Amino acid sequence: MSGNTIGRLFSVTTFGESHGPAMGCIVDGCPPGLPLSEADLQQDVDRRRTGTSHFVSQRREADQVRILSGVFEGHTTGTPIGLLIENEDQRSRDYAAIKDSFRPGHADYTYWAKYGIRDYRGGGRASARETAMRVAAGAIARKILGETIRIRGALVQMGPHKVDRAKWDWSAIEDNPFWCPDRQMAQQWEGFLDGVRKAGNSVGAVIEIVAEGVPVGWGEPIYGKLDADLASAMMGINAVKAVEIGAGLAAAALTGAENADEMRMKDGKVAFLSNNAGGILGGISTGQDIVVRFAVKPTSSILLPKKSVDAHGKEIEVQTKGRHDPCVGIRAVPVGEAMMAAVLADHMLRHRAQRG
Amino acid sequence: MSGNTIGRLFSVTTFGESHGPAMGCIVDGCPPGLPLSEADLQQDVDRRRTGTSHFVSQRREADQVRILSGVFEGHTTGTPIGLLIENEDQRSRDYAAIKDSFRPGHADYTYWAKYGIRDYRGGGRASARETAMRVAAGAIARKILGETIRIRGALVQMGPHKVDRAKWDWSAIEDNPFWCPDRQMAQQWEGFLDGVRKAGNSVGAVIEIVAEGVPVGWGEPIYGKLDADLASAMMGINAVKAVEIGAGLAAAALTGAENADEMRMKDGKVAFLSNNAGGILGGISTGQDIVVRFAVKPTSSILLPKKSVDAHGKEIEVQTKGRHDPCVGIRAVPVGEAMMAAVLADHMLRHRAQRG
Amino acid sequence: MSGNTIGRLFSVTTFGESHGPAMGCIVDGCPPGLPLSEADLQQDVDRRRTGTSHFVSQRREADQVRILSGVFEGHTTGTPIGLLIENEDQRSRDYAAIKDSFRPGHADYTYWAKYGIRDYRGGGRASARETAMRVAAGAIARKILGETIRIRGALVQMGPHKVDRAKWDWSAIEDNPFWCPDRQMAQQWEGFLDGVRKAGNSVGAVIEIVAEGVPVGWGEPIYGKLDADLASAMMGINAVKAVEIGAGLAAAALTGAENADEMRMKDGKVAFLSNNAGGILGGISTGQDIVVRFAVKPTSSILLPKKSVDAHGKEIEVQTKGRHDPCVGIRAVPVGEAMMAAVLADHMLRHRAQRG
Amino acid sequence: MSGNTIGRLFSVTTFGESHGPAMGCIVDGCPPGLPLSEADLQQDVDRRRTGTSHFVSQRREADQVRILSGVFEGHTTGTPIGLLIENEDQRSRDYAAIKDSFRPGHADYTYWAKYGIRDYRGGGRASARETAMRVAAGAIARKILGETIRIRGALVQMGPHKVDRAKWDWSAIEDNPFWCPDRQMAQQWEGFLDGVRKAGNSVGAVIEIVAEGVPVGWGEPIYGKLDADLASAMMGINAVKAVEIGAGLAAAALTGAENADEMRMKDGKVAFLSNNAGGILGGISTGQDIVVRFAVKPTSSILLPKKSVDAHGKEIEVQTKGRHDPCVGIRAVPVGEAMMAAVLADHMLRHRAQRG
Repeated sequence: MSGNTIGRLFSVTTFGESHGPAMGCIVDGCPPGLPLSEADLQQDVDRRRTGTSHFVSQRREADQVRILSGVFEGHTTGTPIGLLIENEDQRSRDYAAIKDSFRPGHADYTYWAKYGIRDYRGGGRASARETAMRVAAGAIARKILGETIRIRGALVQMGPHKVDRAKWDWSAIEDNPFWCPDRQMAQQWEGFLDGVRKAGNSVGAVIEIVAEGVPVGWGEPIYGKLDADLASAMMGINAVKAVEIGAGLAAAALTGAENADEMRMKDGKVAFLSNNAGGILGGISTGQDIVVRFAVKPTSSILLPKKSVDAHGKEIEVQTKGRHDPCVGIRAVPVGEAMMAAVLADHMLRHRAQRG
Repeated sequence: MSGNTIGRLFSVTTFGESHGPAMGCIVDGCPPGLPLSEADLQQDVDRRRTGTSHFVSQRREADQVRILSGVFEGHTTGTPIGLLIENEDQRSRDYAAIKDSFRPGHADYTYWAKYGIRDYRGGGRASARETAMRVAAGAIARKILGETIRIRGALVQMGPHKVDRAKWDWSAIEDNPFWCPDRQMAQQWEGFLDGVRKAGNSVGAVIEIVAEGVPVGWGEPIYGKLDADLASAMMGINAVKAVEIGAGLAAAALTGAENADEMRMKDGKVAFLSNNAGGILGGISTGQDIVVRFAVKPTSSILLPKKSVDAHGKEIEVQTKGRHDPCVGIRAVPVGEAMMAAVLADHMLRHRAQRG
Repeated sequence: MSGNTIGRLFSVTTFGESHGPAMGCIVDGCPPGLPLSEADLQQDVDRRRTGTSHFVSQRREADQVRILSGVFEGHTTGTPIGLLIENEDQRSRDYAAIKDSFRPGHADYTYWAKYGIRDYRGGGRASARETAMRVAAGAIARKILGETIRIRGALVQMGPHKVDRAKWDWSAIEDNPFWCPDRQMAQQWEGFLDGVRKAGNSVGAVIEIVAEGVPVGWGEPIYGKLDADLASAMMGINAVKAVEIGAGLAAAALTGAENADEMRMKDGKVAFLSNNAGGILGGISTGQDIVVRFAVKPTSSILLPKKSVDAHGKEIEVQTKGRHDPCVGIRAVPVGEAMMAAVLADHMLRHRAQRG
Repeated sequence: MSGNTIGRLFSVTTFGESHGPAMGCIVDGCPPGLPLSEADLQQDVDRRRTGTSHFVSQRREADQVRILSGVFEGHTTGTPIGLLIENEDQRSRDYAAIKDSFRPGHADYTYWAKYGIRDYRGGGRASARETAMRVAAGAIARKILGETIRIRGALVQMGPHKVDRAKWDWSAIEDNPFWCPDRQMAQQWEGFLDGVRKAGNSVGAVIEIVAEGVPVGWGEPIYGKLDADLASAMMGINAVKAVEIGAGLAAAALTGAENADEMRMKDGKVAFLSNNAGGILGGISTGQDIVVRFAVKPTSSILLPKKSVDAHGKEIEVQTKGRHDPCVGIRAVPVGEAMMAAVLADHMLRHRAQRG
């Protein structure tokens, strides 16, 4: 396989540019007999969609997912599932002005240097629109994982402002446009982000994804470790610059005595007294919650002018007009959940293969 | 391929348990015609070896690497390179006492739960000894990359103590037992770590790996991004809990105006004015230094007693006697370099395949 | 990757059922900068299309291929190429009668037993319609290979009737509906196949695919040998039961003295005096023509009644009414060419990766 | 992974040259808990070993297989199994005379052209000695498959002389040095092969491998079909030029009425009335015997002089002195069995992954 596939047994291959005719993906390896409808996918795709608040960009597309194969009479058949989203909003904008410009912080320059050619309209292949397919595939992964495994994500930091973990309330995340689990912080963010947006600027964010109910034993050491695959999946999301498992970076400052998650028995089962490991030891799930965090850099498209160069080696100033997200991290929450689901589904099948 | 292989074109498959007869690996996909000797590999393997200071554990093994194939008359032939390290130090220790115990923070419990059986001697497959093979393979990767690409690593934080970046001096790293680039901090660490060791405790660390000279264009979006593959490779090193690229976690707190690496022309080439991106945009190298950091948790084997359980569901106390590293992160430096080299060599070949 | 992908660097992943809404594929790893249009693909797809003579089944579909991504301003961009063919001919036939029946020689029983569910309409995923995507992908592979490599196929045996190799004329294959290189035999086949069709029966065939201009050196021993990959690609075509390289099965009856292809120098280049090897030695191309043959079994859908069973364990008689090909091997010719092209393009990139 | 690995979940990666220090392999993905000893492997390796009769070459090596990892206290642990065979017979022969010669029918020229360098001693990487590792890995595969699946091979044709299928007797294969299931033909072959050997010539052969007890449902369409994977595995064995499944090439000459394997119920199970399909329909096992045949070309190393060229472009005559097998197909029988076992074990795990 080449570079546009993720997963070994539950595998997802995507295609599509931001302003091409359509985007799509092939989800392969899905077990047969699972109930699946377009509505199941649409629900998750809608969660990441643009245009749901004034904090995410105003491109208005239906992002209607069609299932083209692999589902028969409402159930998966075990054959590959083809998914398609037609791009409706292919405005006949005049891209001539920007087609040779390299926007700082974007992949314009690297795509051009790597391939010698690029679809410059709206970011082309590097556009975050591609993540819509990940979310759709993630919805299928959730079906495979079943209802005992619950995957949820939250924004835990916006710019310099972190949530208060003592105030964590999962029910809050549906009540604000930021997936913020701290109601008080959500209010504060609202004003903060409005200011950022009005200044034509942007901010970064940290997202936390938690998977509950994952049994002990998933993960394939040494080079298919569960945490390594999660790190790859999360780092591969647009604009991500860091990935942490459990205590993460903070583990470096801990002593061995502080960091070790002690174990006791509870109701005949192994129970950990803490979760610095983030639910993974030796690359294998421990049965505790899997906890992954990732940092998203601030949106690169900003109104403020930045120094750059163009394809002809001319020094220019770049200023992005039009719609943009002041905090692209917000929309990364459903994407992170989808990647968690995809990695776990893959490892569920991999574990089943070896252990029966 | 199954879980013990890393890399697509430059691929490394390892085997071996800590106290089995031998460890080895197969390096496949290496271009033919490169000069290669056992001494080339030994040099790097020796850098991570145990017993080089009282800050790393005292297991004394020669760790002699043999090349069993793929090299003829001093040059690689393009066929797979088989490497072997015999395990000399297989003490007939009495492991009976610990064979059913799960050491907190170790993979004892997860291996046992996953496989139903485990080689409990010295960590078995989960032992850091496996990384010797990574280092040997990394030395081959460096040969492929050639001399224009330079990969170096440093310990930038030990426990809570970070180096002062203003004092960064690459030449210092060979002069202290910590790979510390800040001579002053190296002295401070010495006392600090002695205290940790005497207390029977341990500390975590942060390692930074820098690759200079990587050309623009390497990396295979969307699911083979250079940063995603680096994240996977680093997170897969024993005890790693976080991976950062460039500004990393700190990018979350930046604004778009602060974070964007502006571009100018210099000597007819694109020159960036900063490197928050860590040398990667859109999953593709920018031509700047590739900068990766990873956090290693404190050694789990400590003298202080910790609560645990055993394979029979009995609650126990675990206390690790004998040799152990007070800061296992120190030995992770050459391993991180090797993983960087392996990932880059793989992407060099992948890029060449598509671009000629 | 899971089971619906072929190729490592030039990789093709397909989806789609015979009577679902659409079929499609993702072609990944294609080098950038190649001129490519929908017309390029359509030309090859039309060659395998149904309804072109009364010797192939009468399903009349446009089989219009759309390029959904990976091509910009008439050139490939190096990003994945999404292809789609909408299924127009989804007749609202009453399949109720046959939905639980297992047609002998078809995959009905095995799909049902494997997955517990199947799309029974027109063969579902096992339909030869899937090969349209292979042909489209093969057209892209040809672009990668360039004009110095020429791939052509011919039907060399229909039922018991073989072509006379002394009368081989490549120009003849376009002049008869069988891709027959022997004009005289083509005429004989016409009467023969009419008889078979009128009897409600079918016959098998042998197809030969020849690739001229392949340079010495492609193929990746030991487990990525060029002949092994060709064998897999050809055997994976619907209804294929045998694959031969060069002298093939006949090599078993030869002596070493007869079989060896002797070498001389000609115009400063190595020239072989025969080609029993079919252009491959040790899994690597020799620079001679690559010659592959494969046998296609007779179409399983025939008017004559056959004993079978159904999903309820009832013994039944199955008789296939309606359109069918009396010799399905005819349409396998362009498919075999496409598989040859795909395998060669993959190995061209793999060789380039290792050798530069 | 690169080219020296076969299998996706049960994967085997080999290394080693004929006259290097050692050959080895890594068997990955093996389920834990299976009893396994070196004796289990040795038994199969001995079956293919040289020197067992005057019909196979007289290189006398112990070919002692060592297990270096992945087995603990007599059972597999689920971690990779490292295997090693030291090469004892590295005679300090003077290869200078032949080091630049290309033996016709061998891979000398293609390896040299592909890599620009080759280990010319005894065939190097292209030597059939590599198949010893396949056989060892195949023995592990058999353990995974368990005792209900039985894999046996036989030589069914030597030169032009085919066995009489009416006289097929599996018990005969252990009683003659050819794995011949027809006692009468075995006697005839003895005289025939003696004549071939004395003439300094060689002959080809056809091998048939049969797997009994494989359940319905294994195989992963469209590009991981069981027959496609078997074709690749068998074609990848040294000197193989053709692979057939079931009726194979003969299917081309059959009519649909003759070829279809009709079905009836027997003891509540589906029973086929014939097995032209060779146990595979649509790429999925039917529950019947899996029947694969492959043709091996005559040994290329013969005493008779043949025209060739050398690395300097000089025209030469090549004549192979010393030990050689007059019919290399004999030793391919255990190798074919091993490849069947490896492919089936892989598909058993793949099926289990998707179906649970």
